Amino acid sequence: MALWLAADARAVEVADMSAHSSTGAASPDLAPLVLVGLGLMLVVAKLGGEVCERFRQPAVLGELAGGILLGNLALVGVTAFEPLKTDQIVGALAQLGVLILLFEVGLESDAKALLAVGWSALLVALAGTGASLALGWLTASYFLPDAPRLAHIFIGAALCATSIGITARVLRDLNKLQTREARIILGAAVVDDVLGLVMLAVVAGSIAAASAGVSKLSVLGIAFKAVVFLLGAIALGQYVVPRLLRGVGRFEVRGVLLAFAVAFCLLLAWTAHLFGLASIIGAFAAGLMLDEVSFESVPRYEKRDLQALLAPVGTLFVPLFFVLTGMRVDLRVVARPSLVGFALALTLAALVGKQLCGLVVTERKVKRLAIGFGMLPRGEVELIFAGVGATLLLPGTNGNLEPVVNNATYGAIVVVVLITTLVTPPLLKWTLTRHAREPAHESAEQTTN
Amino acid sequence: MALWLAADARAVEVADMSAHSSTGAASPDLAPLVLVGLGLMLVVAKLGGEVCERFRQPAVLGELAGGILLGNLALVGVTAFEPLKTDQIVGALAQLGVLILLFEVGLESDAKALLAVGWSALLVALAGTGASLALGWLTASYFLPDAPRLAHIFIGAALCATSIGITARVLRDLNKLQTREARIILGAAVVDDVLGLVMLAVVAGSIAAASAGVSKLSVLGIAFKAVVFLLGAIALGQYVVPRLLRGVGRFEVRGVLLAFAVAFCLLLAWTAHLFGLASIIGAFAAGLMLDEVSFESVPRYEKRDLQALLAPVGTLFVPLFFVLTGMRVDLRVVARPSLVGFALALTLAALVGKQLCGLVVTERKVKRLAIGFGMLPRGEVELIFAGVGATLLLPGTNGNLEPVVNNATYGAIVVVVLITTLVTPPLLKWTLTRHAREPAHESAEQTTN
Repeated sequence: MALWLAADARAVEVADMSAHSSTGAASPDLAPLVLVGLGLMLVVAKLGGEVCERFRQPAVLGELAGGILLGNLALVGVTAFEPLKTDQIVGALAQLGVLILLFEVGLESDAKALLAVGWSALLVALAGTGASLALGWLTASYFLPDAPRLAHIFIGAALCATSIGITARVLRDLNKLQTREARIILGAAVVDDVLGLVMLAVVAGSIAAASAGVSKLSVLGIAFKAVVFLLGAIALGQYVVPRLLRGVGRFEVRGVLLAFAVAFCLLLAWTAHLFGLASIIGAFAAGLMLDEVSFESVPRYEKRDLQALLAPVGTLFVPLFFVLTGMRVDLRVVARPSLVGFALALTLAALVGKQLCGLVVTERKVKRLAIGFGMLPRGEVELIFAGVGATLLLPGTNGNLEPVVNNATYGAIVVVVLITTLVTPPLLKWTLTRHAREPAHESAEQTTN
Repeated sequence: MALWLAADARAVEVADMSAHSSTGAASPDLAPLVLVGLGLMLVVAKLGGEVCERFRQPAVLGELAGGILLGNLALVGVTAFEPLKTDQIVGALAQLGVLILLFEVGLESDAKALLAVGWSALLVALAGTGASLALGWLTASYFLPDAPRLAHIFIGAALCATSIGITARVLRDLNKLQTREARIILGAAVVDDVLGLVMLAVVAGSIAAASAGVSKLSVLGIAFKAVVFLLGAIALGQYVVPRLLRGVGRFEVRGVLLAFAVAFCLLLAWTAHLFGLASIIGAFAAGLMLDEVSFESVPRYEKRDLQALLAPVGTLFVPLFFVLTGMRVDLRVVARPSLVGFALALTLAALVGKQLCGLVVTERKVKRLAIGFGMLPRGEVELIFAGVGATLLLPGTNGNLEPVVNNATYGAIVVVVLITTLVTPPLLKWTLTRHAREPAHESAEQTTN
């Protein structure tokens, strides 16, 4: 009954041939730590989710908090789970989870309705990015007066990108994906991703490269590729997807609908990556493309069959992403007293910057506060920005080269990510459900259809 | 809309800071190759499965064959997918697939029924192992007369372990898991795993270590730990699992049954690993323990709810294992003319060795041929044995140290794995369904309940 699992490690143990372990390409192991780690992460996710639901908070908050506890057990002397935070396989499964989440969100969204809020989404994204950049820049100038101006701009740019995973999850948990607010947020998040790319290209390019000409070209290139991808996805959705689905409908073998749909999601994620976009944009687009209209050509299946099949897969993998996000929060970094002022000011800048989003929405009957809170969470992109900043050097006041993002600044950015991530679920819930009774017109109607 | 996916690689591209990629611990990437590879593997699995089902063969055969095609595209100049074969993440997902398969098989099996065939299973395992060892030893002595006797024994030992994944999958596809034959095969496979461990410990130990005393102790230790694990699992199944399930039944949060069940499977797999057994034994035991009786204490759930939730997860991940198994077959190695005689003789030894299994079954009305074919597939363990053998040195006829398993022998073992894997599905189907009409008594009755 032995397959390759564990058998490799076992062979090495028994025969004590360490030479073999380096050639073990034919039998990579699911390491014991991964087995126990994934098991614990699932348990922590459900325990945390349960506690939060009892307090009428979105389950995702509990998954994040549970992850923070699991990831900081080193503070009480338990260091066995530390390697999980950077484990490749746990990371890959978490990423698969967020791909599946965005695929599900795409399936639940309606492309036409998203395009209908196109202008609002574009304005929201531009306003949120601009305001976050400006406020972050100002805050950095005030707290780090000696740092060069490019460093201030870099910190401002680091505050811009929205981490849509948490918002999407909360909107889903609250069953609000069909509201106008949700559509604006999702549309703006797509634009945000493109803007974030452009921002990193421009700012890092200005710091690292001498010539600015290359940056300008690459900026245009990124924006152009993103537009081509999205237009291409819409065209594919119209012409290719129905034909594909008709083909799939002819298969007799078990599980063909789910397997092909997930393959489609993965291939779109890959295509998005080719176009320089985040893979989750591709997963979201794949979900959008598999719409009701496409399924009309397949008498055997309905869209909700696919959603029902996908649900258990999401149940398992999506929480891994949020628990891991929590695990990666290092409370030791967050708790430094010297950091508090700068960190809170940056968090305030991040909050106010995205709240200005709501003001540009010209439509009436839209909950502007909710849009601002929906765009609030910052996530991995901020941490990546911070990581890139730590490798960029600029001459300081004394003429020595110093990193654009030093340890204190890195800690402050971690605090921004932590606070915005943790406050979004309750704030979003509050704003979206608060007025639900009074001007109940639109959103209430749409959630029931 | 950017999370960590791809954003890391992108930052590196844009800002051209290769230093960052080495510190990218905080943001491991789902590499583009993994995205496209997993997508293609799913498509290949379903295309292959479909073709086989049209020819009334088990789908798993098509997944293996599709994998062989995908993995040997290098022969026609396409080398882009070569790294997938050794990709850690693809390997981990495939292993997750086989864990889920064995968990599902465990859920569909009945512990009492397995214990009822305990003696038959033990006899089958012992006979199959003994006969395979003896025939492999003889074959090796004939074809490699100059090699030392320990090398012959080693090759014989490499033929013993049964790769249960394929048999379990075929039994499931044919809806025959409830037959007496299936129970004997599954029980024997558990024993086989322990015997395989003992065998590798003894043979590799005798070759590598000077003192045999250590080996004897470790042999006893392995067998003891395996028995403790299995007895412990049965005890747990009786007392702890119903209480656990009752606790889970009190949770309100979405997806709790599936998440806890999979966590339980992963933790049992880990425990099995701790006891020196293969992780899939743990997954199988976890499935056995979550039996109908345990679910009686939870009014909210039934066992078939869990099976229904697990099915889509299995649909996605199980084929990855079989496609990857196929991909790792290197047709260039298999096709060497000089190898043919030895390879075919070894395959015959493997086939006949396991067919002798059936003869020791004293019960009547049992399809002995089916049991022999069920125990036929060799898999990763053989390849691991071969890999270990390649690192073991023994003095040859000319006095020089030579590897126990040289390139030719390695190739021959690959052929054994390939042929036994590919012929098992059709042979098993043939023997199990052939008599279905004539002495239809037992197996037909049991599959309908």
